[in-house]
Amino acid sequence: MENIKNRRTIRKYSRQEVSDTLLNELLEVSFRAPTMGNMQLYSVVVTKEQGNKERLAPLHFNQPMVKEAPVLLTFCADFNRATSWCEQRKATPGYDNLLSFLNAMSDTLLVVQAFCTLAESKGLGTCYLGTTLYNTEAIIKELQLPRLVVPIAAITVGYPAETPEQVERLPSSGLIHSEKYHNYGSEDINRIYAEKEALAINREFVRINNQETLAQVFANVRYKKTDNEFISGKLLEVLRKQGFLK
Amino acid sequence: MENIKNRRTIRKYSRQEVSDTLLNELLEVSFRAPTMGNMQLYSVVVTKEQGNKERLAPLHFNQPMVKEAPVLLTFCADFNRATSWCEQRKATPGYDNLLSFLNAMSDTLLVVQAFCTLAESKGLGTCYLGTTLYNTEAIIKELQLPRLVVPIAAITVGYPAETPEQVERLPSSGLIHSEKYHNYGSEDINRIYAEKEALAINREFVRINNQETLAQVFANVRYKKTDNEFISGKLLEVLRKQGFLK
Repeated sequence: MENIKNRRTIRKYSRQEVSDTLLNELLEVSFRAPTMGNMQLYSVVVTKEQGNKERLAPLHFNQPMVKEAPVLLTFCADFNRATSWCEQRKATPGYDNLLSFLNAMSDTLLVVQAFCTLAESKGLGTCYLGTTLYNTEAIIKELQLPRLVVPIAAITVGYPAETPEQVERLPSSGLIHSEKYHNYGSEDINRIYAEKEALAINREFVRINNQETLAQVFANVRYKKTDNEFISGKLLEVLRKQGFLK
Repeated sequence: MENIKNRRTIRKYSRQEVSDTLLNELLEVSFRAPTMGNMQLYSVVVTKEQGNKERLAPLHFNQPMVKEAPVLLTFCADFNRATSWCEQRKATPGYDNLLSFLNAMSDTLLVVQAFCTLAESKGLGTCYLGTTLYNTEAIIKELQLPRLVVPIAAITVGYPAETPEQVERLPSSGLIHSEKYHNYGSEDINRIYAEKEALAINREFVRINNQETLAQVFANVRYKKTDNEFISGKLLEVLRKQGFLK
């Protein structure tokens, strides 16, 4: 409980190696996460070689931890293995569709979070790279991912060389709905976001980005409509290419 | 570590209630899972009323734990709240697209797994209902989910009234790739699936389903091509209706 309660993302790592024994043990235990029909629809690519990290770094928008962390893990939705199994066992697989992609993606993300919790319980730090979905095509090429395999999330792993402040979260009552979804009126939005908007760090964030509101920093600067739409188009094409939309 | 290593899905629950205090605390801590840009793109609908559970049960193919567990949680990808926030703060949100859906789905699943780990550490049992993706449209209606909200996973929660055997997993070495993805040859497939196929419980599973191989139980009986394709079509329509494909 305390581990998760006190967790923070770690972006700076010491030079201490993460042993293969520990890494493999953590991964093996993380594979205990729930999985659809016990099919385990994921694969993990472990990047430790510096040259490979350097080739992956630009695909994660050159976030420095990609090159600096001792280990980069790319978690992939994988229906290739199960499909090969079917083909070799006189079964006709039918997993080249959107539902199967989302099922494999679900399996994958449960493992990612189980892995992070486990790693943190052993004193390791992790950083979740959501950038993985932004450059799927190039990551697929770099990691040589075959049809029916799509990278979903990458995690940097290492021993922490920083203790950052824990970032804020919205009041949990604003995210929990009793029995039915209760849609948000303007009062609700004001109440839920008030504390976040009032934080000095977020006010500074608004100022240095030359915006008027914190929401504008998200919508106009960090996660823009035009970028989102451009990447969505690329993603759809990647899903098709990887065989998940036929 | 031991908690996750020894976990099993719990489908039978004692009559002991799960207090709101405990449930809310577990949810609040689970919201510490990583989230894109700290946007927290999820909502959780808590179902405790028996009538509501009974209406949801058929949408989960009448799996008995939906009605029998003291609590059913439906975790939803939610860009509605963030979008409302933007609209109220002179920002133009651009989250009605596939990338944003997958980002919100990622956030949601990390929270699901964090929640399960936390619940299990407090002696609770959980069962992940992947069926959620199969009946999204009806669940959306039942839970009154607005545009930009899609149910991703449901979890039953309660104190265990059973201690099932732990199910097998594939050898972890078969799921971990060093530096690049190493595609599976037929020898690899044989090695990776050998133990699973040899288990008495799985051989019995093949027999009672009148199949020749275990893979056929998956491909011909449990997760069939025709069903997957039918549901994929419905899912695409739901994503469009909920505003994630415009």
